[in-house]
Amino acid sequence: MTPKNNRQVRLKSRPNGIPQADNFEIVDAAVPELAERQFLVRNAYLSVEPAMRGWVAAVANYSRPVGIGEVMRSFAAGTVVASRHPGYAEGEAVMGMLGWQDYAVSDGASITRKVKEADLPLSLSLGILGLNGVTAYFGLLDVGQPRPGDTVVVSTAAGAVGSAAGQIAKLMGCRTVGLTGGAAKVKLCRDEFGYDAAIDYKAGKLDAALAAACPRGVDVYFDNTAGAISDAVLRQLAIGARIVICGTASVSSWDPPPAGPRVERHILVKRARMAGILVFDYQHRYEEAVARLAAWIREGRIRYREEIVDGIENCPGAIAELYRGENLGKRLIRLGR
Amino acid sequence: MTPKNNRQVRLKSRPNGIPQADNFEIVDAAVPELAERQFLVRNAYLSVEPAMRGWVAAVANYSRPVGIGEVMRSFAAGTVVASRHPGYAEGEAVMGMLGWQDYAVSDGASITRKVKEADLPLSLSLGILGLNGVTAYFGLLDVGQPRPGDTVVVSTAAGAVGSAAGQIAKLMGCRTVGLTGGAAKVKLCRDEFGYDAAIDYKAGKLDAALAAACPRGVDVYFDNTAGAISDAVLRQLAIGARIVICGTASVSSWDPPPAGPRVERHILVKRARMAGILVFDYQHRYEEAVARLAAWIREGRIRYREEIVDGIENCPGAIAELYRGENLGKRLIRLGR
Repeated sequence: MTPKNNRQVRLKSRPNGIPQADNFEIVDAAVPELAERQFLVRNAYLSVEPAMRGWVAAVANYSRPVGIGEVMRSFAAGTVVASRHPGYAEGEAVMGMLGWQDYAVSDGASITRKVKEADLPLSLSLGILGLNGVTAYFGLLDVGQPRPGDTVVVSTAAGAVGSAAGQIAKLMGCRTVGLTGGAAKVKLCRDEFGYDAAIDYKAGKLDAALAAACPRGVDVYFDNTAGAISDAVLRQLAIGARIVICGTASVSSWDPPPAGPRVERHILVKRARMAGILVFDYQHRYEEAVARLAAWIREGRIRYREEIVDGIENCPGAIAELYRGENLGKRLIRLGR
Repeated sequence: MTPKNNRQVRLKSRPNGIPQADNFEIVDAAVPELAERQFLVRNAYLSVEPAMRGWVAAVANYSRPVGIGEVMRSFAAGTVVASRHPGYAEGEAVMGMLGWQDYAVSDGASITRKVKEADLPLSLSLGILGLNGVTAYFGLLDVGQPRPGDTVVVSTAAGAVGSAAGQIAKLMGCRTVGLTGGAAKVKLCRDEFGYDAAIDYKAGKLDAALAAACPRGVDVYFDNTAGAISDAVLRQLAIGARIVICGTASVSSWDPPPAGPRVERHILVKRARMAGILVFDYQHRYEEAVARLAAWIREGRIRYREEIVDGIENCPGAIAELYRGENLGKRLIRLGR
């Protein structure tokens, strides 16, 4: 039986910087009839992530900006509830770019993958077994190329991507140092995510704290923040350091880019390498990462945290909340029914 | 017959920024007696290079700063005129860290290589067949990894390193765009060094000129300047761009680092890679580069320019002159005798 009503979170106005609740509106829409080779997904979990800021920005980014009046672009995980597509059967779990809405019609193009880890919670496909974990996996291993004994510094160390990167680095035999904001997250870094050291960047004296935590310098910097935190880390690079640019959470607007100390001298003197990671470049290797991450989870070698709130009405304010840094785990919206 | 007098250019005071003539003094010293396993080199050419600024800076750099009262560190090329070392015979040509002086005593540790290209001018061992050419070779090929059809932008495009980088890129099948200052150097880039396009960054409208010269974006940026020129190039990066940080000639002091637009967003969105090249990391592959560069020179496929002035009295002011950007070729001091 096809449902009738589909609540959608649509972009109402173009945000100036970080998207706020009033940039969105929740609208009741009809679930359309399925055409040949289409199927209907009932979303169970909607994702909230920092990259969403870029998706709604007017400035060209990785992809076309979400248009005004369009459903907010989002990863979501759910179950096929009706299908006229030979490749997708009712009852199958899928994850993909299904949008902030109850139901999504797909022809398969928006599907990232079928979720085959039936023994693990479906929500993980949006976090540690989703873009967050896969980003951490390839960003750290492919771009950062950690070696046993390396000192690996991670910014937003308690976040969904950072905590995965820190734990993978630890599994690779590295010494891990987490940068995070506030005592609660410092504790989380140490007790939950196994960092060898965790530094509260809000506590001041970041240079001294970093120097103490990284006596032989920083070999790999997995960076989710940019800004003043990165400035301090770059002053501690070891020769041959690798800097993984994964996100720029500390910068509220890149139009125009904010000023900061020029980096070329660090890069030159330390023969360092700074490179960006965009997970979409690794689509062909997605299953490799998920398989390894899932194995580590089953073995209890990687931990994760989720912050799940119920109800689509929590979507509009969720991105701004993420940037306020208040959450202590991967932020998800659960759609009960 | 061992000579008696050795004129030496010594560091008199620690420069504040770019070393000026009055930071040095010329002193007459005695040529010491050779000990066992030492030999004496009569310098024929002394090198002048941008990196010398770093060698006399108080701030830690690649190597120990030159001490006050010490002979200025410098590459030089010359001939063994006396030897008590079994590995070095009278009459052999050598290049190495022999200092700004007429004669250098060596035990071999300061020698970069014996100059075996007897069919080519000895002075080339300090330029296109020396650190400049080898830096361009490994910086472009190893760090920049150009592919045929790539657009390669070079800053200080007419300089000793830049002109070599641009020509090697052209030999690799790339489209080359040179950035340089003034009409004379633009002409040099086009007519002598074969750049497909050359831009006078002093003429203004650099963004528009770069966009016109690089319609598909910049795949490789071989950077010798940093600063505002690099800011403009980074706005034109193609996806997957490689940025080779080879020098920072436009920055007069890094203590403290000057501010500029933060680069992380470019690196992330374009999945670009920025990395430093320091030629000393390639000592074990030096002969590979020299052999290939020498072959290209003999075949007339690489051109070079030298600006040779006679007399050690030209040394003290030579670094400052280099940074004023007035020279049109590799700056060398010839010691006549």
